[in-house]
Amino acid sequence: MTAPLTADGGITFDWIDGGGVTTPAGFVAGGIYAGIKTYGSDPRLDVGILAAEGDAPLVAAGVFTKNAVTGHPVTHGRRLLAETSEVRGVVCNSGNANTATGTQGAEDCSRMAELAGARIGGGAASVLVGSTGVIGRMLPMDRVASAIERIELSRDGGYAFARAIMTTDTHEKQYALRFTVEGRTYHVGGCAKGSGMIHPDMATMYGFITTDAPVDPAWLRQTWKSVVDVSFNMIDVDMDTSTSDMGIVLASGAAGGDPIDAGHPAAGPLTAALAEVSTRLAKAIARDGEGATCLIEVTASGAASVEDARIAARTVTSSPLMKTAVTGRDPNWGRVMMAAGRSGARIDQDSASVWIGPHCVLENGQPTKVDLKAVSEAMGGELVTIRVDLGVGDASATAWGCNLTHEYVSINADYTT
Amino acid sequence: MTAPLTADGGITFDWIDGGGVTTPAGFVAGGIYAGIKTYGSDPRLDVGILAAEGDAPLVAAGVFTKNAVTGHPVTHGRRLLAETSEVRGVVCNSGNANTATGTQGAEDCSRMAELAGARIGGGAASVLVGSTGVIGRMLPMDRVASAIERIELSRDGGYAFARAIMTTDTHEKQYALRFTVEGRTYHVGGCAKGSGMIHPDMATMYGFITTDAPVDPAWLRQTWKSVVDVSFNMIDVDMDTSTSDMGIVLASGAAGGDPIDAGHPAAGPLTAALAEVSTRLAKAIARDGEGATCLIEVTASGAASVEDARIAARTVTSSPLMKTAVTGRDPNWGRVMMAAGRSGARIDQDSASVWIGPHCVLENGQPTKVDLKAVSEAMGGELVTIRVDLGVGDASATAWGCNLTHEYVSINADYTT
Repeated sequence: MTAPLTADGGITFDWIDGGGVTTPAGFVAGGIYAGIKTYGSDPRLDVGILAAEGDAPLVAAGVFTKNAVTGHPVTHGRRLLAETSEVRGVVCNSGNANTATGTQGAEDCSRMAELAGARIGGGAASVLVGSTGVIGRMLPMDRVASAIERIELSRDGGYAFARAIMTTDTHEKQYALRFTVEGRTYHVGGCAKGSGMIHPDMATMYGFITTDAPVDPAWLRQTWKSVVDVSFNMIDVDMDTSTSDMGIVLASGAAGGDPIDAGHPAAGPLTAALAEVSTRLAKAIARDGEGATCLIEVTASGAASVEDARIAARTVTSSPLMKTAVTGRDPNWGRVMMAAGRSGARIDQDSASVWIGPHCVLENGQPTKVDLKAVSEAMGGELVTIRVDLGVGDASATAWGCNLTHEYVSINADYTT
Repeated sequence: MTAPLTADGGITFDWIDGGGVTTPAGFVAGGIYAGIKTYGSDPRLDVGILAAEGDAPLVAAGVFTKNAVTGHPVTHGRRLLAETSEVRGVVCNSGNANTATGTQGAEDCSRMAELAGARIGGGAASVLVGSTGVIGRMLPMDRVASAIERIELSRDGGYAFARAIMTTDTHEKQYALRFTVEGRTYHVGGCAKGSGMIHPDMATMYGFITTDAPVDPAWLRQTWKSVVDVSFNMIDVDMDTSTSDMGIVLASGAAGGDPIDAGHPAAGPLTAALAEVSTRLAKAIARDGEGATCLIEVTASGAASVEDARIAARTVTSSPLMKTAVTGRDPNWGRVMMAAGRSGARIDQDSASVWIGPHCVLENGQPTKVDLKAVSEAMGGELVTIRVDLGVGDASATAWGCNLTHEYVSINADYTT
């Protein structure tokens, strides 16, 4: 059961140019170069902090990777958010995942939380940690410690923080919007990282969302899960699940008013706003997938359940053969049926239909007499849309991915660590 | 529960140079060019028949794709083998999968079985059909029918049959061996196709195994499943499951003697021989994966169950990031842990260990002080071996795959249909 994700009652979202995690009131952030990351465009930053501006704590909710192998920061964050919903902030580094680093790695993670706590108030138990990058290498803790001490935090540090969490991303990803409910204006901002170029590394994902809305902690936890399910959990670059994935939402309450819970008039609009920002970030991650030249949007309809629709859409999105077909503008739509068929979703192949862009290529199990050249043309451009109707029900879901190019292989093979 | 797969009692397997499906007595085969396939090296053949030599039927067992979308030949074969364990033979074409072809495709499949039945004896209900290639296009039935009428079948037609089932494979894949139990000599032969070059198509898989051993049908069915589980089901080229996969075993009984069942002295050796031939074919498919330059052998040990070991080995084998790391000889072994972690198998990351070739890079959860240059060197060559110990039990399994290269992208993207 997912919460309603559209703002009703005529609520509009105003996107804020250049906005990010410090657009909502009550947050400070910053980024600095510690010298962990040896690649990436300028400004090259690799340690960042996002924190509460004043003395009050932030209400937090988080989701973490489902990989059974996890980085120490994921273990730390899971434990922390199981005990409390109030934190002072987050400290992150990029270029090193602090994963498969044994007991020393666990100590390094705790030390990052302690050092950041000394800067932003609170002990290690009130600071979340993120580490992303290569697995199995020790963090250069002297440089990390020095960076945490020197980092400048400010109300306009969102951009630096968004740069500091990047690994192989080709550009920072940050968005913010505002909306008004019953005369009170709220803001939601966010930044994320995905996978990009140059360094042979994992497709790790971070998503950090902030809001100045005051929120009920239990409501936020539940809402955040439903938001992640339709945004960050619906993208795929290469089927490999990071050991460091995390999606964190932080609420400062600086907008004032009563805490938002399910009965509050702003609950629907805020949920929709969180989903808008998260989905836009998720699509930006997919579009910036390593070596990608286009965004692929796959909708599965006619499914027996939302879960079936989700798994079918995600499987088509992640199929290497579908992804290479898009690269070659090859109207080989059979690969869409193949991927939907192996997804595990219920499908009636005699009732199934497939569209590439506006062109129906399979209708109720029968191939149509479509012009394959026109289908090929619909596979060009920045956005390729595919729809498969499974022919068994009414549920639908949309997933986003990217094409598979020579550049993906180059990024992950030609440059050795 | 898998049957024992090693020949005991000092049984040895003699591999027969150039052997294939017609090496065992009681089989004839042939291949011909019908003009379905517009690519492939000479001799380019695209319709093949494998059949009983005399009037007696063959005992058959088969396993088929688990993809919910299936070609008409898979539907036909499943239905046929649910009703009988006796067939006259198999008719195959390559270049067209006869999948997602609607009602006309179903009729075309039945007609292929009828026409072949007229050639080799028996009606449509005693002939298996295989079609592999592009999805969603109609078979050129006039040419297929003419080819089935003209095809020459002989005792040395195994090579032509092995060529006729190839799609993008770079070479035919066929093996045969003989072994003797209590003075009687039995033969096992086989051919298979996987995926190869030039045509943007699916990684379809065929495996056809023949033997002159007389067999009990129920025993063969059960044994064949256990053989496929350790051979054809343990390879991966690109995670995309074909809609046409089939593995068929046919027994002529021409070697004479009592039908082999679980209590027969030849049961163990025959099971082992079927597994030897099937595994060798499976590894040949993986090594000839589209664009591949090496075979990757991944063993998962220390697993809680064989099922866990199988899923962990297969997931590491199929990880795009691991496959590209091998291409670049990048000693980025964290990707092995990442893939094992996301496989769904139980893993204790504080007890897990990883080896690349002979080099232990992670020992009981602690990174070792290994020379990464030596690890990189162990990732070169025709065979790269990787082992991950999950640290939770005693079960193990081995899977085979190939590296991911620029050529894979070229094959599937640069040449449009």
